[in-house]
Order: sequence, then structure tokens, then C-alpha cells
Amino acid sequence: MDRLLQFVHRDGILDLGWGHPRPELLPVEAWAEAGAAAAREFGWRGLAYGRDVGPGPLIDWLAGREDAGAAAETFVTAGASQGLALVAEVLTEPGDVALVEAPTYHLALRVLADRGLELVPAPGDDDGVLPDAVAGQLRELRASGRRVPVLYLVPTFANPTGRSLPEQRRRALVELARRESLTVVEDDTYRELSYAGAAPPSLWRLAEGAGVVRLGSFAKAVAPGLRLGWINAAPAIVGRLADLGFVDSGGGVNHSVALTMAVFGASGAYDRHLAMIRERYAAQRDALVEGLSRVAAPDGGWFLWVPTPDGVHADDLLAAAERHGTSFVPGSRFHVGGQGGAGYVRLSFSHLPPPDLAEAARRLTRAMTGS
Amino acid sequence: MDRLLQFVHRDGILDLGWGHPRPELLPVEAWAEAGAAAAREFGWRGLAYGRDVGPGPLIDWLAGREDAGAAAETFVTAGASQGLALVAEVLTEPGDVALVEAPTYHLALRVLADRGLELVPAPGDDDGVLPDAVAGQLRELRASGRRVPVLYLVPTFANPTGRSLPEQRRRALVELARRESLTVVEDDTYRELSYAGAAPPSLWRLAEGAGVVRLGSFAKAVAPGLRLGWINAAPAIVGRLADLGFVDSGGGVNHSVALTMAVFGASGAYDRHLAMIRERYAAQRDALVEGLSRVAAPDGGWFLWVPTPDGVHADDLLAAAERHGTSFVPGSRFHVGGQGGAGYVRLSFSHLPPPDLAEAARRLTRAMTGS
Repeated sequence: MDRLLQFVHRDGILDLGWGHPRPELLPVEAWAEAGAAAAREFGWRGLAYGRDVGPGPLIDWLAGREDAGAAAETFVTAGASQGLALVAEVLTEPGDVALVEAPTYHLALRVLADRGLELVPAPGDDDGVLPDAVAGQLRELRASGRRVPVLYLVPTFANPTGRSLPEQRRRALVELARRESLTVVEDDTYRELSYAGAAPPSLWRLAEGAGVVRLGSFAKAVAPGLRLGWINAAPAIVGRLADLGFVDSGGGVNHSVALTMAVFGASGAYDRHLAMIRERYAAQRDALVEGLSRVAAPDGGWFLWVPTPDGVHADDLLAAAERHGTSFVPGSRFHVGGQGGAGYVRLSFSHLPPPDLAEAARRLTRAMTGS
Repeated sequence: MDRLLQFVHRDGILDLGWGHPRPELLPVEAWAEAGAAAAREFGWRGLAYGRDVGPGPLIDWLAGREDAGAAAETFVTAGASQGLALVAEVLTEPGDVALVEAPTYHLALRVLADRGLELVPAPGDDDGVLPDAVAGQLRELRASGRRVPVLYLVPTFANPTGRSLPEQRRRALVELARRESLTVVEDDTYRELSYAGAAPPSLWRLAEGAGVVRLGSFAKAVAPGLRLGWINAAPAIVGRLADLGFVDSGGGVNHSVALTMAVFGASGAYDRHLAMIRERYAAQRDALVEGLSRVAAPDGGWFLWVPTPDGVHADDLLAAAERHGTSFVPGSRFHVGGQGGAGYVRLSFSHLPPPDLAEAARRLTRAMTGS
């Protein structure tokens, strides 16, 4: 067990299971420089109780980015995972239904379950949720007396599929949210990892602030150990987040790191780093895709969603893969209650360099073909 | 409105209301040095997803401190306020009763209320909770069908009273907790700010791990903007904290800052800083106490709990004080539902240098005497 990290190394396994960044791509020097500059620029103000919604310099910088919210629509979080927990706390009550796309980010399901929500898969197909079908499902659930305040999804470079929701469905979903008083919780963690030009417009931007809450994250574009992200939401929701007791007590939830990020952003270090990692992660994607047969390359993010051969159960394939020295996450993990996804696996190309990814692909191919 | 800080400056007011550190006493340079050293020592491992319970180097350092828990009994938090929210999440259900000392830290009441708990003041006197009376209250509440899983208190250099629970009551409370299956949540935020020798033993240490959960914080001893603290609890409770969905998703809740603190601690900077601020805060305490008549100096912490003269309501005194250019928090804020404390005010000596505290005392005295 590593005493510093969440990652668990296993000898002899080139592991495609972890959605973790490649260590060499973390900005150790640039971040340390930003920390030193923030200490010079903000002095004691970087160490005092921070403003509840997050420090102005970071919020201003975020507001100037594409797809972002205005300052009054921004609450700085200690990461997207905390952001989701806080959004669930202010928008739902235990016992409510949360609709979730299927498949979706498996650990988000756990965060929502911790709030005491009943998770119900939203209807969809290979391109993501189907807004008209969701509208029907929503009416049925509500007609049966259930409260259904939120729909959670990762519409852009999704975890686990790597795919993005088509723009027409985005517009229909935003319209549905407004019409039906449903809050769409848009987990936008992967937006910046775009390898083929601009990412699709966020639901948040299309909605112009009504009916969508957007979870932003610095975990992928900068570093997950910082535990820093943000929420874009209507000012009334931002106000409810800032009014949570633990925020009132402790102030901004990751004040000192947020100020370092403000410097990292304003100095240009963020854009330089992002340009570098986009190239590198795209190359990693290519190494894995080219090592596998007939797998489409996603336009962004960290993941491939690959069908098992001949309908083999992913759990069985996992055992074979580990005998061959590689690993992945079986598709059922991304479905509520494990109901679905048995014919898929999620492969992450985030953690390993291209040669290792090519070798992992060879091992996986051998496991798939039984050779 | 300050765009960086929680603190709100008001022209002409020497404000004794805020329990915030004095800016000059925040360790700007030493912390920046620790950050640079942590970057050198831990490299990319300080930026990756951190171990769920917190990084080993910080946990080891904490385990070596007095009154601390062993490594398996420690979970690193993003501050004591988050720690309380997480403890409430794993130990209580909405609708449960939480006993709380009266008066107690007002914003803790808000954190517990956010969990949907009913707050019931525990019986006590000027020295704190009365364990035998609490036992009777507990039996009555439980006999009436209520679940009462926790008692929250600040037994050492308390917010708002500055007082510490006598050792005999500590032992009785720990015994009660074990006997009645009540978890005592010990908010130990002020322990390190001891101005007259050793602080009383923590409930956690007296309990030897059974029936007590201890909330630790770096907010007062180092800096609140770091949002860093820890929980000491039985390993089973630590396991439940680490198994929360948002922790599983994001890893250690403040990983990079925790590693900087590990360096700050191991280098000796923590002990040097603590020795310095103990002297300075003690001098601030003395300046405020000496400026007021017949107020006893607490042995630690940041607060004086002062009766209003002639039974004047604290809200009326507040209006007079602000006309004279000073301010404080009325005592009712520290009681559930504002029921109690009208004849007391909380004065903080943490934020202002001695000359300002002396002047604030003069202004308050004029407000109290109507001169």
C-alpha cells in the first residue's frame, strides 16, 4: 500500500484501470513557482479565512474562460467530487430520485448514494441520454409521487465512454430541464482535454444559467492532488452553497490552493501546461487505439469504452487480462447496481506512456483472442 | 466586501467579534519555504490523487504529538468544520438528536443542523457539561424513542467561553460515553493555544479510543486558509470516512497541503511558530483582560466570555458598543435557537494587536458604563 497515493501499483501489471494522470505530466516545477509567486502577491491573505465562494482572482480568471459562468455564478470547490456532494446536499433530499446516465462515472454513483438518493438510469443509446425518453421517464416517476430533482451526466469526453453528447441532444436536454424544473448536473471534468479542436458547448452555456449546474475541475488539466474545482450555477444556488454551515465556519473550502491557481492561470502557466498535456494525452490515446483492432479514437478525455469479443463477460475477460499482465475496469461498474455493461470494458490511457500502452494493448489483445 | 477574505472590515470599528488570526502572526515565509521543500521532496507525488486517509508523513508526524491518535486512528480533513460535517455524516442520520454543550461554537450548530439533526442543549454549569445530568437526559430522550448518537463540545479553551472542562468531568464523560454508547465529538481546535503550561488531557486520550471522536485543526496553530485538520477516531470510523463516495472519487481531501504540512511539522517550523504565537496571543489576551474590569484571563484559546453589566441584554449592549467603535458577538448566538446567553458577550482577542485591544476595551467599557 502506497503511503502517499491512492494508486496501488501491482507488479507485472500494465494497468489500464486507473483514471489517474501520468506522473511525468504533472506540473511540479510550474506549480511550485506559482505557489511562491502567490505567497509574494497575496502574503498573509493567502493564509487567512478565505471568502466563502472562493477568492476573487480565481473566480475572475475562470469567468474569462470559454463556457464558464460569470463571477456571481461561481463557487470554488475542493474538487469536482466534493462539488457533486455539495450540489446533492443543496438540491436534493434523502429519498429523492436522481436520474443518471448509463453508463456513467461509477464513483459519482457512490457520492449520490451517500446522500440517500435512489439512482435511476436515464434512457439513452450509444450517443448518450435521449432527452425525449428522459422527459417521459420523468413524468412517470413524478406521477407516481417521486421527487426527481436532478439528472447527473458527463456529456463531454465522458467517463467511461470517451464520447460526447450530440449538440442537438444538448439543446433538447437544456430545454427539457427548463420546462420540467429538472436540474441537470453537468460533470464537465474532461472539457479541457480536447484533442480535435474545440470541445462541444457545455450544457451550462447553452442553458444560459437556467436549469444546469456545471461541475468544473482542475484535477485533469492541472493536478488531482490539489483538490480544486468549481461549480457554475445560478446565483441563488451559489448563495445556498456559500451558506452551508461548514462553509460559514471555515470560509472558502480550499482558499490557499485557489489563490495559487489564480496565479498559475493569470501567469499563462495554465495555458502552456494544457497545450503540452493535450499533445501528450492525444499521443497516449493513439498508442492505445492503434494497439487494439477496430476501436474508435475519442476526441478527448482519458477513456476508451470497448466491447468484449463475442459477448464474453467483462469479469471473465478481466481475469484473463490480469493473467496476461494488464487490467481495466469492467463495464458493469458504471451502471447502477451493476445492471448492464457486462459486454464492455473501460480502458484508460491517462496513466502510462505510449510504449507501455502499446504493450498493454498487445497483452489485452492476447487475452481477448485467447492466444 | 473583501474579494479574498471572509473578514469584513468596518471603518471605525475595532472588532472583537471575529475569531480570526492576527494577520501579522500568519507564517507566510515559513509556509512558502515548506511548500518549496515539499515540492522537492515529494515531486509529482504531491500532485497526484492522494491516499484516502491522508498522506503517511503527516499522519506519522501527528501520531507523534501529545494527545494524538495512532496512525490507524487518523483521517486527514480539509479543516475541523469539514471534519464535523463528515463525522455527522457517518455517525448520525437525519432526524437524530445531537446533544450540544451550551453555550458552544455557534457555527458547529449550523453544521449539525445541515445534517438534519435536532439539537438539544446538554445540561451544564459555568464549568461546562455535567456528566451525571447528561446521563439522565440521554436516558430520557432514548426512553422516548429518540436516537441520540452524539454529544458535541469544545472542552479545551472553549469557543465561546475560553474555559476548559475540569478533569474529573472529563473522566466521567468518557466513562458515560462508553457505558451509554454515546459518541462524544471533541472539538479540539484550540488545544495548542495554551498559555499556562500544558493543556488538559484530551477526552480522546482519556478514552483510549473508545467513545470519543476528536476533531483536530491547523487553523489556529498554523493558518485557517490552508483548510487542513484531522479526525482521531476508532479505526472502524476512520474506515467509514475513507469509504465515503467523494473520498473514494477524489482521494485524500487536501493532499498537497497535507504534504506541505508534513514538511512544516518535521522541519521544526511548526514548533517554532507555535512557541511564537503562544507568546503573542497571550500578550493579546492580557491587553484585553487588563483593559476590562474584573474579567478572568483564560488559560488558552482566543476568547473571553463576559457578563453584561446589570443584566443588560447583549443585543442592546452591541448597539451601544458599535456606537462607541467596537463590536463583539452576543452570547445568544452560542445557544441553540438563541435560547440563552442574553447576559453574555464573546470577545475575541485573536485579531488585533495589543494597543488596539486596549483601545477596544476602553470603548467597550464606555459602552458598558454608558459614559
